[in-house]
Amino acid sequence: MRTISTEASEVPAPPAKSQLTPADWIAAATHVLRDKSIDAVRVDVLAKVLNVTRGSFYWHFKDRNDLLERVLQRWRDTATEQIIQRFEKKPPEQRICEFLTLPFHGQTAQNAASIELAIRAWARRGALARQAVETIDSDRLAYIAQCFSELGFSPEEAKMRAFLVYGYMVNESLLRTQGSEQERYARRAFVERTVLAR
Amino acid sequence: MRTISTEASEVPAPPAKSQLTPADWIAAATHVLRDKSIDAVRVDVLAKVLNVTRGSFYWHFKDRNDLLERVLQRWRDTATEQIIQRFEKKPPEQRICEFLTLPFHGQTAQNAASIELAIRAWARRGALARQAVETIDSDRLAYIAQCFSELGFSPEEAKMRAFLVYGYMVNESLLRTQGSEQERYARRAFVERTVLAR
Repeated sequence: MRTISTEASEVPAPPAKSQLTPADWIAAATHVLRDKSIDAVRVDVLAKVLNVTRGSFYWHFKDRNDLLERVLQRWRDTATEQIIQRFEKKPPEQRICEFLTLPFHGQTAQNAASIELAIRAWARRGALARQAVETIDSDRLAYIAQCFSELGFSPEEAKMRAFLVYGYMVNESLLRTQGSEQERYARRAFVERTVLAR
Repeated sequence: MRTISTEASEVPAPPAKSQLTPADWIAAATHVLRDKSIDAVRVDVLAKVLNVTRGSFYWHFKDRNDLLERVLQRWRDTATEQIIQRFEKKPPEQRICEFLTLPFHGQTAQNAASIELAIRAWARRGALARQAVETIDSDRLAYIAQCFSELGFSPEEAKMRAFLVYGYMVNESLLRTQGSEQERYARRAFVERTVLAR
């Protein structure tokens, strides 16, 4: 904080810049993470991107680690919790079908998939990201399994089928250049038939 | 090459070191890639790991890019071609089952999966790696589809089922902390029943 007041008096930021919120820093960090890698997510890089002083970062965050934790928290909020809220009031079979369709949601899905792949790459090397990824995978699998339970499948069956649904979603993102659009729709339909079959 | 003769005369390497082959450099690069990331795969880093002069690298490789191409080539050779050779003489149904069992092959599978995930992470940012990953994914999918074709499935059915088999393999690696060992075996068996069902 001391750093910022010194720097700010030397190079006063325009009013708009001084109104940056933690969310702006988190969004900028997520962009850099997606387009480069976790190593590139550094305070000096972000300050340059946002066109503010490096010191102003410390008004909002204790340190880089604090920022990274909140990047992961934001990912978790948007990627999982919003999906769950969105699907909450629909019948289980429809929820499963909508999950299978998520990878087809154009630009939004591709952007989300790029961010997620960057976080999985980061999770290979960082305990913080690894823990976040494992928690999200586990939450999503449990949520999808719950849909199958509501359809009357046993807990074991529900888990196996949830793994297939979730795995399919991960794969459509990871292998999105494989196959024509028609083939991608056909395999989605195949997975749907398969997981809903009694 | 000039660099190495100068450096070698200053700090003569022990005989064993001078016998380093391109394969040693490629193996060292793959290790660093797996444990860190593509950014850490630099000639100076590898020379230190191998305890040789930086210049000796240029006896074997034109530049860093040349090394990276051969890292990808080696990955492709070991990851795909050896598997295909290994399974070639078995009946198609057995080949499919063995594919589904691959993620369970303990340490070897985990090491291969770690290398592959590092390469997928690299593919997010590098055209060279992206092309290699797309080619391998496409080759493997075609190979697995071929097994289903031999079992009498139509080309469309064969492709959809191959996507499920391959996707399942990718997922067992990516989501390997999800579920108990028993659950992992159960979902493998479920995928097997599912993809072989008429």
